[in-house]
Amino acid sequence: MEALDYHAEERRKAEFNLEEMKIVWAGSRRNYELSDRMARIVASDPVFRKDNRTMLTRKDLFKDTLRKAAHAWKRIIDLHLSEEESNMLRSYVDQPAFTDLHWGMFIPAIKGQGTNEQQEKWLPMAYKMQIIGCYAQTELGHGSNVQGLETTATFDPQTDEFDIHSPTLTSSKWWPGGLGKVSTHAVVYARLITSGQDHGVHGFIVQLRSLDDHLPLPGITVGDIGMKFGSGAYNSMDNGLLRFDHVRIPRNQMLMRVSQVTKEGKFVQSDVPRQLVYGTMVYVRQTIVSDASCALARAVCIATRYSAVRRQFGSQNGGPETQVIDYKTQQSRLFPLLASAYAFRFVGEWLKWLYTDVTQRLQANDFSTLPESHACTAGLKSMTTSVTADAIEECRKLCGGHGYLSNSGLPELFAVYIPTCTYEGDNVVLLLQVARFLMKTVSQLGLGKKPVGTTAYIGRAEHLMQCCCEVEKAEDWLKPSVILEAFEARAVRMSVTCAKSLAKFSNPEDGFAELSADLLEAALAHCQLIVVSKFLEKLQKDIPGKEVKRQLEILCNVYALHLLHKHLGDFVATGCITPKQGALANEQLRLLFAQVRPNAIALVDAFNYTDHYLGSILGCYDGNVYQKLYQDAWKDPLNDTVVPDGYLEYIRPILKQHIRTARL
Amino acid sequence: MEALDYHAEERRKAEFNLEEMKIVWAGSRRNYELSDRMARIVASDPVFRKDNRTMLTRKDLFKDTLRKAAHAWKRIIDLHLSEEESNMLRSYVDQPAFTDLHWGMFIPAIKGQGTNEQQEKWLPMAYKMQIIGCYAQTELGHGSNVQGLETTATFDPQTDEFDIHSPTLTSSKWWPGGLGKVSTHAVVYARLITSGQDHGVHGFIVQLRSLDDHLPLPGITVGDIGMKFGSGAYNSMDNGLLRFDHVRIPRNQMLMRVSQVTKEGKFVQSDVPRQLVYGTMVYVRQTIVSDASCALARAVCIATRYSAVRRQFGSQNGGPETQVIDYKTQQSRLFPLLASAYAFRFVGEWLKWLYTDVTQRLQANDFSTLPESHACTAGLKSMTTSVTADAIEECRKLCGGHGYLSNSGLPELFAVYIPTCTYEGDNVVLLLQVARFLMKTVSQLGLGKKPVGTTAYIGRAEHLMQCCCEVEKAEDWLKPSVILEAFEARAVRMSVTCAKSLAKFSNPEDGFAELSADLLEAALAHCQLIVVSKFLEKLQKDIPGKEVKRQLEILCNVYALHLLHKHLGDFVATGCITPKQGALANEQLRLLFAQVRPNAIALVDAFNYTDHYLGSILGCYDGNVYQKLYQDAWKDPLNDTVVPDGYLEYIRPILKQHIRTARL
Repeated sequence: MEALDYHAEERRKAEFNLEEMKIVWAGSRRNYELSDRMARIVASDPVFRKDNRTMLTRKDLFKDTLRKAAHAWKRIIDLHLSEEESNMLRSYVDQPAFTDLHWGMFIPAIKGQGTNEQQEKWLPMAYKMQIIGCYAQTELGHGSNVQGLETTATFDPQTDEFDIHSPTLTSSKWWPGGLGKVSTHAVVYARLITSGQDHGVHGFIVQLRSLDDHLPLPGITVGDIGMKFGSGAYNSMDNGLLRFDHVRIPRNQMLMRVSQVTKEGKFVQSDVPRQLVYGTMVYVRQTIVSDASCALARAVCIATRYSAVRRQFGSQNGGPETQVIDYKTQQSRLFPLLASAYAFRFVGEWLKWLYTDVTQRLQANDFSTLPESHACTAGLKSMTTSVTADAIEECRKLCGGHGYLSNSGLPELFAVYIPTCTYEGDNVVLLLQVARFLMKTVSQLGLGKKPVGTTAYIGRAEHLMQCCCEVEKAEDWLKPSVILEAFEARAVRMSVTCAKSLAKFSNPEDGFAELSADLLEAALAHCQLIVVSKFLEKLQKDIPGKEVKRQLEILCNVYALHLLHKHLGDFVATGCITPKQGALANEQLRLLFAQVRPNAIALVDAFNYTDHYLGSILGCYDGNVYQKLYQDAWKDPLNDTVVPDGYLEYIRPILKQHIRTARL
Repeated sequence: MEALDYHAEERRKAEFNLEEMKIVWAGSRRNYELSDRMARIVASDPVFRKDNRTMLTRKDLFKDTLRKAAHAWKRIIDLHLSEEESNMLRSYVDQPAFTDLHWGMFIPAIKGQGTNEQQEKWLPMAYKMQIIGCYAQTELGHGSNVQGLETTATFDPQTDEFDIHSPTLTSSKWWPGGLGKVSTHAVVYARLITSGQDHGVHGFIVQLRSLDDHLPLPGITVGDIGMKFGSGAYNSMDNGLLRFDHVRIPRNQMLMRVSQVTKEGKFVQSDVPRQLVYGTMVYVRQTIVSDASCALARAVCIATRYSAVRRQFGSQNGGPETQVIDYKTQQSRLFPLLASAYAFRFVGEWLKWLYTDVTQRLQANDFSTLPESHACTAGLKSMTTSVTADAIEECRKLCGGHGYLSNSGLPELFAVYIPTCTYEGDNVVLLLQVARFLMKTVSQLGLGKKPVGTTAYIGRAEHLMQCCCEVEKAEDWLKPSVILEAFEARAVRMSVTCAKSLAKFSNPEDGFAELSADLLEAALAHCQLIVVSKFLEKLQKDIPGKEVKRQLEILCNVYALHLLHKHLGDFVATGCITPKQGALANEQLRLLFAQVRPNAIALVDAFNYTDHYLGSILGCYDGNVYQKLYQDAWKDPLNDTVVPDGYLEYIRPILKQHIRTARL
């Protein structure tokens, strides 16, 4: 018997080889096979089921997380998985847990900021999970402004200890994942004070809970900060609060790779370059960009598949109605997001390369590309996560009413994704950093300093300020050079305009504050240019299969031209293109949508997501949506009884007109 | 002892009389006093507490809804509240419940579509809640396309009954609120079939559950459709599914005001004009616009108050950091939303007038303004709800990390609000209806037909197609006539461009489908013009107090100029303004933000929301945010025990390296 597949006809329409595209998406055949294997291990294991997650109480959900984390750890040990495989497996479990912070923040902090000695002491325990750690930085009153943290670590030379203390309510640590209920240790960020002098914020390893009975140690107040957005989502995580009442730790638990405090209380900077910190940030943000493409792809996969199942209007002579994916309004909202998923995937891939490159240079004491790399990753983190958050909600809307059901998977995906816009650098703050870097780059042009990397185009400002877009007919917009120059010209002109406006202020900081909204737009234009140019570069590389390449070209053009249409004001107002050329771009965009249409289902199949990972009835592989929705409804606890609990107390008295005398 | 008020200084800065502004916001002193009284009744009653709502299981939340609905009904009876007061009281209870559908859809459907005889039979029972009804229209496979519904009502002249039947899985009724567990009756929409002929979709009153024991009647399968977006939010509502297996109802339970079926099975259209249906739609959508301003105002109130509490960066010489509301980036995101809340409030007020006007005309058999009123309300429903949904999420982001906590109130506000974009007409479908009307209006210009009401400006197309914006300096953008003409010119030019493109297609429907994305943009431009023009008109009316008027002028200009900046591409590409004029508008906008700043807190105080209704720690009136967050955290069930449930099974075995032998 052939398996049911409502999408079979759609799949037959595809004009490219699916396996080839899957490998392009995964980055390599090896990545594809590895992630495929890990995804299947998780999907086939009943402990990892998540279809009932949104119905659990907070306590049950949290316990479920503990169980999954323990089970994942057991599987990792039993299967002798590598670090790379373990990370993949955990990500396919798809439930925020304390282990994310232990592996993703606690261990990297010790590796990055600990001395060799400290690493030798703490890392083996951490790798074996004999201790579980979290990353306690943000406070109730301080998020973005790390330098404004209030927790203090005061050195006491008498005892050779630090006294860790929370002097105010707002200095309570607040938000760290894994802190509330699980972690035995934390890397705590606090103001270092020696001999009455404040040396700014540094990291300290602090034990929080007894390894015997898990009770908080003396002087430590710790707990969960409460419910968060959505059902399921981050409520599986024990984001915590933490207060210190003069907690003592030995001096050697300050992370001393970059700065040290001697036995005598002297503060010493080591000769390890402080810029190393930026290397870590490049790494973390690179993974965030890669995760953005993944989250966006999930949402797009759900919306695309359901748009092919769902029919509405357009029935002729009693035949079936039109698939909503055939409507241009649906295409014009959905296909740019599909293209964005691919665009973010490729820029994420390139960022991986950039991180390797930066690391090698740092090892050779070459810090020249660091500021540009830092600005670039900050900007791409900001831009891709903001777009993805909005896009998930847009995909939900594209599924009509049913997207509002928990089992569409989109509500929880949205709820679990949106914090990304805030953590690891608030997106607006990051974009302002990019703007600051751009203004610096522009201002140094006159000094003969040549911009590098993603800002190299600014070096061609003179040309870009006066070039004319050479589009005369719609298909001219398909030329990579035309697209690239339009985006470069727009970005450079917006930056130069900002720089000129800034120059009118006597105090540059006042100008920066006053013009910050414009600066954000210039920074965004710069980031969009990077993504477009990396997509174009990718197309020049080793793409297997002519048809796959053709599809990616179409997606690249969709990505670029939808941005051009969305930001038409930028392009036209800066004189980069004429209104007529803008209209031609829009015309070309419509033609491209028609080319995407037959390949849409295959393009989301290429993400190779299991039904378990997608977690969406609307997006299920076989497209048997309505039957599954109907069957799933009966599982809701409210359907346990035909007559609901509360009928006798609250419904019957109304109907029987006894409400005035009822005891409610 | 003076009450604590962290916002006291902010409140002193206000440059207008708060009581006057409260009355402007409420629409009249009477409305203000009425709603103030109802809000306080709810806020002071412990049964209506909702601060623990997001922690309840689905079953407990639903039971809580039943209790609140019964208690509200008891209060309404005890206090002898009028219909208007009852509606207000229910809205301040702020928890979706079956009563919303009973009062808001079931009763209006019988009033609008029932004959006098039917109304006399059913309404008294419904008014006393001896029966509880819902509105069963959408089906698993059919939402927007009402004419595509599959449920059948086949007349059987032998028994003088209709046979109500669900022929397919996709014909299952799906989504109706109050259906799943509570309603005893429903207005069911089904295809009327007499003598084998299909007469399209009509409404029927069907009893679903026994009035004795609440069990579903024979042939009826009914249940809840399961969990929806978020925690709390619409999970308090029993959105239901419903299947009929040849359920019989008497002939006189078809709603027969507009069409009848005789005893012999003859289908007869009455002489009641079908357009009356549109009158009801104008009414319902008018309330949705009014609710949009209310939801937007809640979100803006929370974000504004917390932006004044929250400080980040900018500390000088150890002084306090800068209030985030003082940052231009924050202002440029927040203040346009504040202005939008006021703009939507006033356009909602005007729609109330429009509904009265339309009703009076209908009674006098004057249908001339109906198409325009219908298009206008459809467009405003679409535009204001889309903006509000996005704005709530933007306000959440404006609160930084803490906006992600449930007790910020914003997650639940978002979750409960977003379905508004889908129900009562999907926003994209509605906007396409507006576009269709605009295209018709433009095409009839040549025929000498004069556009009326909100489309009157299209009658001046000739002038508007070639007028020049007369802005030479930033402050020229403060002139109402300049703003109005720019918005009119942009809207008319976009419509005319679409009409010209459409004319190139031999089949207009093909053209409409192909160009639908452009048509949506033209329709949006038209809707924005309406809101701007109604705000400007409001300023010409009886505003009490010069300072209040001054503030509203500022907000009106913020509203218009932020739209101009956001849609700069439209304005510049259509030649309505030059890039230079666009830059001047932006410059003026910045100046306006500075004028809003000192009044920001008072402008949200004017909404007169109780802390109960706001349901947000971040937005609490006294601004004592951090202490309340800290205290509230301890109430989470996870904090019931210091060591979490699951420690022994899942954490300890990891730490003690017993994981391989642990039973998970």
